[in-house]
Amino acid sequence: MESWVDGQTADVLSLKDRGLAYGDGVFETIAVRDGKLVLLERHLQRLALGCQRLAFNLDWTLLNDELQAYAQQLGEGVMKLIVTRGDSQRGYAASPLAQARRILQGSPPAAYPAAHVEQGIQLFPCATRLCEQPLLAGLKHLNRLEQVLARAEWSDTEHAEGLMLDTSGRVIEGVFSNLFLVRDGVLFTADLSRCGVAGVMRAELLFQAKSQGIATQITDIRLEQLHQADEVFVCNSVYGVWPVRGCGSTRWSVGPLTRKLQSLARTLLDA
Amino acid sequence: MESWVDGQTADVLSLKDRGLAYGDGVFETIAVRDGKLVLLERHLQRLALGCQRLAFNLDWTLLNDELQAYAQQLGEGVMKLIVTRGDSQRGYAASPLAQARRILQGSPPAAYPAAHVEQGIQLFPCATRLCEQPLLAGLKHLNRLEQVLARAEWSDTEHAEGLMLDTSGRVIEGVFSNLFLVRDGVLFTADLSRCGVAGVMRAELLFQAKSQGIATQITDIRLEQLHQADEVFVCNSVYGVWPVRGCGSTRWSVGPLTRKLQSLARTLLDA
Repeated sequence: MESWVDGQTADVLSLKDRGLAYGDGVFETIAVRDGKLVLLERHLQRLALGCQRLAFNLDWTLLNDELQAYAQQLGEGVMKLIVTRGDSQRGYAASPLAQARRILQGSPPAAYPAAHVEQGIQLFPCATRLCEQPLLAGLKHLNRLEQVLARAEWSDTEHAEGLMLDTSGRVIEGVFSNLFLVRDGVLFTADLSRCGVAGVMRAELLFQAKSQGIATQITDIRLEQLHQADEVFVCNSVYGVWPVRGCGSTRWSVGPLTRKLQSLARTLLDA
Repeated sequence: MESWVDGQTADVLSLKDRGLAYGDGVFETIAVRDGKLVLLERHLQRLALGCQRLAFNLDWTLLNDELQAYAQQLGEGVMKLIVTRGDSQRGYAASPLAQARRILQGSPPAAYPAAHVEQGIQLFPCATRLCEQPLLAGLKHLNRLEQVLARAEWSDTEHAEGLMLDTSGRVIEGVFSNLFLVRDGVLFTADLSRCGVAGVMRAELLFQAKSQGIATQITDIRLEQLHQADEVFVCNSVYGVWPVRGCGSTRWSVGPLTRKLQSLARTLLDA
């Protein structure tokens, strides 16, 4: 499907856009099912946090109208929304009055091997570390060179995702996923106040788990804790939940809590 | 002057460009005098380092031809070169065969107040810290949200630049400049192996200073060392050297080594 820029069909962008110049923008990747945007409220919440921290002036009414209309036309697939600060002249200073630019791109449903869901995946242990920048932590902003470097570390098809630590060695997330581990019935995921992307599916799974009386902990995770986990899985808002079978020489079996949350994610994504 | 994309006149860019999607690119801002590119060799050296670390396939012959031709047409001003990894589909993985994209943008000579050069400037002490990411340190890449946040911290005209520390509290650089200090006749500038942009004018001034027998040290700099300096100045490849008169409540006088290096920079930029 053709892309839209500020509500108009377009396949190009102004060379003066600050998204290009500085990565001065944020994005959301949203699953679209039967013309509906899955987990839209959570995507908009994270987008709002990004717009607040970066001081963007975004026309939310126009954005909402465009999201709905674009999803209707797309029907089934993945919508990527990019919001940038818009154009500016040379230099980092931005006009506080600049109107943020809205870019919508559509693609067909993601085609991952069914085995990722059924048997689980192998994580590549990335050497690229996430730097600790509390001002940007949690946001899905356009400064993603660390992910580009990490993803370039493997090219085989044996590894479906990579494991990323921060520069202090804490376990944070995947390259395009969040990571959970289960130990003694408790669901753990990394604290993302220093780095990492606070994923929409992560938030939803934490909410669903709590609703079902499962104990959850958002905390710093050491590599030893990961290796000693009973279950490990990754998630995002496009593919749902993939069990993790191994990383390096460590092996995990696919456990009941992973299957339960995977089923919940599937229900959301199949809705 | 109109911009060029891969040698063709253009004012827009493909929405699939990875420079927009991930900040997957690098840039150079080059002074152009009488159709000539100032400090071109040093700009190309840093660009080559960026292309190497990010594994870009850049056609250097085409780039060189375009740089020369564009500078000829621009005559006097500032040329911004952006090199991105080019287009890709959704996802961080990039084709190792992708050809890097070359974007040239021209603007008139920078119009800074003469007082910046003559009397010196005041630095704004930015609260935004630079995170420590050795894999990207030194490069002038397109992931510049920290600079955007730092530059948004002040809007008065009293401050011409901002002072940026890293997350460990070391003195690193300005928002769009490198920083030097002088103490007991020795020229100090920050080690940029963890963060910061290794500026072309910084490299040239270090080289020139050494050639003239001035002792230089590239080292970690604490805030107390900055406050106790005899002289402080900032530099970049567009404006040359600005003496720093103050930062917060600290005041420095404009000293002889600053004036000497300022004069050297002026000679290069007036050539």
